[in-house]
Amino acid sequence: NHVIVCGLGRAGTAAIKQLEREGASIVGIDHDEHYVELMKERGYLVILGDATEDEILKAAGIERARSIISALPSDSANILITMAAKDLNPRIRVVARADRPENIARLKRAGADWVTAVGIAGGARLALAAVKPATVDFIHSILERRHPDYKLEEILIDEKSPLAGKLVRDSRLKEDYGSQLLAIIRNGTTIANPDISETILPGDVIIVFGAINKLNLLETSPGAACPLKSE
Amino acid sequence: NHVIVCGLGRAGTAAIKQLEREGASIVGIDHDEHYVELMKERGYLVILGDATEDEILKAAGIERARSIISALPSDSANILITMAAKDLNPRIRVVARADRPENIARLKRAGADWVTAVGIAGGARLALAAVKPATVDFIHSILERRHPDYKLEEILIDEKSPLAGKLVRDSRLKEDYGSQLLAIIRNGTTIANPDISETILPGDVIIVFGAINKLNLLETSPGAACPLKSE
Ligand SMILES: [Ca+2]
Ligand SMILES: [Ca+2]
Repeated sequence: NHVIVCGLGRAGTAAIKQLEREGASIVGIDHDEHYVELMKERGYLVILGDATEDEILKAAGIERARSIISALPSDSANILITMAAKDLNPRIRVVARADRPENIARLKRAGADWVTAVGIAGGARLALAAVKPATVDFIHSILERRHPDYKLEEILIDEKSPLAGKLVRDSRLKEDYGSQLLAIIRNGTTIANPDISETILPGDVIIVFGAINKLNLLETSPGAACPLKSE
Repeated sequence: NHVIVCGLGRAGTAAIKQLEREGASIVGIDHDEHYVELMKERGYLVILGDATEDEILKAAGIERARSIISALPSDSANILITMAAKDLNPRIRVVARADRPENIARLKRAGADWVTAVGIAGGARLALAAVKPATVDFIHSILERRHPDYKLEEILIDEKSPLAGKLVRDSRLKEDYGSQLLAIIRNGTTIANPDISETILPGDVIIVFGAINKLNLLETSPGAACPLKSE
């Protein structure tokens, strides 16, 4: 149930730092001895090799991994890794970096669940920082876990959940869990800012914002993979 | 009260697209005739010239601009633009792109209010997409205004605001404005997920998530610059 990170350059190492904050187990892959040594010295589990080869992906435990991040500087390599990863483990979540924007759709066609194009995503963030500074600072501090007490969390509601079958109005999310309900994701559809007359159902994924210590009480099956469609 | 975008490459044009969704007026600058022609054909106001020259920044109306985005591929150019922008308009908000991570702190020292390092920010996003897919999809769809009905908004509370002086408990944000209060920013300090016993004061900036049509009722001085410190 670990996350594989292919490519230990700037994007890959930034991804690893963030994965650590999220408490994920990580296996890195890079073909550059220098990067591999650096990460080993810092205590990471890393494999020296070409991530586009099935043997290397297998050595990284691709068959048991929950996700793979393909962050090589070459789009052709990221496309091949995406296809190989889905062949070796059809349930794996593939997150890929696109260097050139025209390859976003190709990476998705190859099977990637989520693709981010480096320059484009950065540009949108620059714009938001220009016009909505407080919101961008706040959301990023929360998303990047720079705030010690609060977090955004997605929680799969199962039958054991104290929220299953409850109306939003009666959920006591604010009172008992110090949290706010931002959205319900049901069968791939997002109900943003749900009305208090909405019912929370088993199988729903809820997105909540609130106190870390209280939110943990809600995760009745924290290891469960969320049954989601990506954008 | 417009936003100047220096550099019409990938990051700059992505920034412009996002600024349009936010309803901002935009002036672009690039020294490459090809980029300038492309943007002119699409109806944008753009200036052909070197954005590191004071004369060009003045031609772009730097003295009246609310923000400037410095998105050139060269960190040295972005540092000079930052310094020139603050000299020509001390109240302007400078948002800069860093190509190399070691220049983030230098851009801030030069006066930038917000700096994003392309590779690093992309890497953190890849990690979140791997472990919290629903949250990342949801937050980005809201931040990038891909959702037609809901938005995140930051609102400066002035004396005329219907919320000024109200307890969070009595604010009726959910009932009357279809909105949730995520944070209060007061004197540069963020009160995340405020308690219902908190009072909303004039001078506060509140960050809310909710229905676009109702949130607009709350913006009693929508043009007001937010008195914020950046991260
Ligand atoms: Ca979770
Ligand atoms: Ca506003």
